[in-house]
Amino acid sequence: MSGGGITYLSGGVGGAKLALGLARVLPPEDLAIIANTGDDFDHLGLRICPDIDTLVYTLSERANLAQGWGRQDESDGFMTAMRELGGPDWFFLGDRDLAMHVERTRRMRSGERLTEVTAALAGALGIGPRILPMTDTVAPTIIETVDGPVAFQDYFVRLRAAPAVTGFTLHGGAPQTPTAEVFAALEEPAMVIIGPSNPFISIDPILHLGGLRDRLRTLRDGGIPVVAVSPIVGGDAIKGPTAKMFRELGTDPSVTAVAERYSDIVSHLVLDTADAGAVGTVTALGIQAPVTPTVMRSVEDRIALARQVLALG
Amino acid sequence: MSGGGITYLSGGVGGAKLALGLARVLPPEDLAIIANTGDDFDHLGLRICPDIDTLVYTLSERANLAQGWGRQDESDGFMTAMRELGGPDWFFLGDRDLAMHVERTRRMRSGERLTEVTAALAGALGIGPRILPMTDTVAPTIIETVDGPVAFQDYFVRLRAAPAVTGFTLHGGAPQTPTAEVFAALEEPAMVIIGPSNPFISIDPILHLGGLRDRLRTLRDGGIPVVAVSPIVGGDAIKGPTAKMFRELGTDPSVTAVAERYSDIVSHLVLDTADAGAVGTVTALGIQAPVTPTVMRSVEDRIALARQVLALG
Repeated sequence: MSGGGITYLSGGVGGAKLALGLARVLPPEDLAIIANTGDDFDHLGLRICPDIDTLVYTLSERANLAQGWGRQDESDGFMTAMRELGGPDWFFLGDRDLAMHVERTRRMRSGERLTEVTAALAGALGIGPRILPMTDTVAPTIIETVDGPVAFQDYFVRLRAAPAVTGFTLHGGAPQTPTAEVFAALEEPAMVIIGPSNPFISIDPILHLGGLRDRLRTLRDGGIPVVAVSPIVGGDAIKGPTAKMFRELGTDPSVTAVAERYSDIVSHLVLDTADAGAVGTVTALGIQAPVTPTVMRSVEDRIALARQVLALG
Repeated sequence: MSGGGITYLSGGVGGAKLALGLARVLPPEDLAIIANTGDDFDHLGLRICPDIDTLVYTLSERANLAQGWGRQDESDGFMTAMRELGGPDWFFLGDRDLAMHVERTRRMRSGERLTEVTAALAGALGIGPRILPMTDTVAPTIIETVDGPVAFQDYFVRLRAAPAVTGFTLHGGAPQTPTAEVFAALEEPAMVIIGPSNPFISIDPILHLGGLRDRLRTLRDGGIPVVAVSPIVGGDAIKGPTAKMFRELGTDPSVTAVAERYSDIVSHLVLDTADAGAVGTVTALGIQAPVTPTVMRSVEDRIALARQVLALG
């Protein structure tokens, strides 16, 4: 929790890619990752934390890179038997992945905070950097759609992100507080990085925590670099419904739209080379706009982008 | 729940073998199986019912016959990952088997009784006869040993049944009540059969239910056959610690010792051909002692024994 480190705000897949790059470049004690817990939900009596799990599997080199979620070398005996029994089968849980949810739930029921459980399980898998759940309380993201409000996993998995979005109710409508560990990671960081995650459903839930958005503004205004990496590249998202959500909310998905969402808190927005033409409109918002390849296909891409971002500090 | 059927009291492996024989011979509506729940326990936040599961897997032809417990075609992804995470790994849970515990626990948390859950899950796997948990409440068998009291699974799995037994505290010391379904199955049965299960830890927990032992005596005294199949063959048990327990409690393991334990409730004790020499001592207790091969190696053995036992009715 000492000062001078890098604090990284992350959602799932896209955010986890850069997290791996940062983890490969920085000493573990210099990296704290604040993870969105807005997607977390209870299923089959188990607490499931998709973004934390994606970070844990990615950083421990256990992620299924081809699939984009879950673990590598996974099997489906549990789901096969669950279907035989006529149980709920809309949310896939691999046999190995299931151990994470069962052990997390067991530890939480025994009284441990999600922060403590996450530290223990990430540690067991050999992860050095801290993965900090944004809060230890329940802060579900509710997707407001033309068909009414929908719980996040219902929207994302069951409805395959199809219904048009009209807005978001973060933290289930009752703003939550960051953990002491999250506060500490933002006390005197050398730099804050916002990952190339969905601004609406991965980053906003973190920024919505009591005092957190103000804290980032104060850091930036005090000269600490607060650097976002754009999740929009060439007018589209690399993965997931980010661009679709911008459109449904009446905004053209662009780096400028991203810059406008973060203009009160960031000093830099890192643009992909495909968006070099937008440097002027971003800098006009008072935000520096360094340009570099941001699409991370290989581990080398992740390390290269991490180095580029860190060089801004 | 209609009268005139066969009601069978069963523990796990040995009892389940004869249950399969009975299920192959009888119309499903004529067979009710009362299952011991004294071995049930909570593990990893899941309700695990070993004897019910053994009955369900056996009757649905999913049991791992070579191993004697668990499911066939099982995989160990969950346990492998659990070990990686440093979680509790002393009790093996196969990936497919885990679905049973997760779905049972989910249904019980939603308010269903164990009896209802068991009916639904057994039905989903195509099982016709009723499998009735002896009680819907918690009735743990505590093994009293020279090293002090031990929870059943701790004794059986963790300690491998090694400590010498000094006694048993059934139902955790607070006698429980049978379910309405168990009462109904004993209202006007054509016959009651007690399986070749461990008398101390599989059958006694059932007999210890409020009113049940008296009910069997009343049935027998009213002319209804109450037939036990001896779990002791040639002075030893086919499987498990039955003979060891007899010895530790100061009794020579024999069919006569079994007959003495059941003398107040049974009309017949079925002996294996190896014990034909003991017919006289058993009948001297006022118990008929038919002799037939009772060791069930094949499915044909199970059917043959079922027919022999049913012929006593």
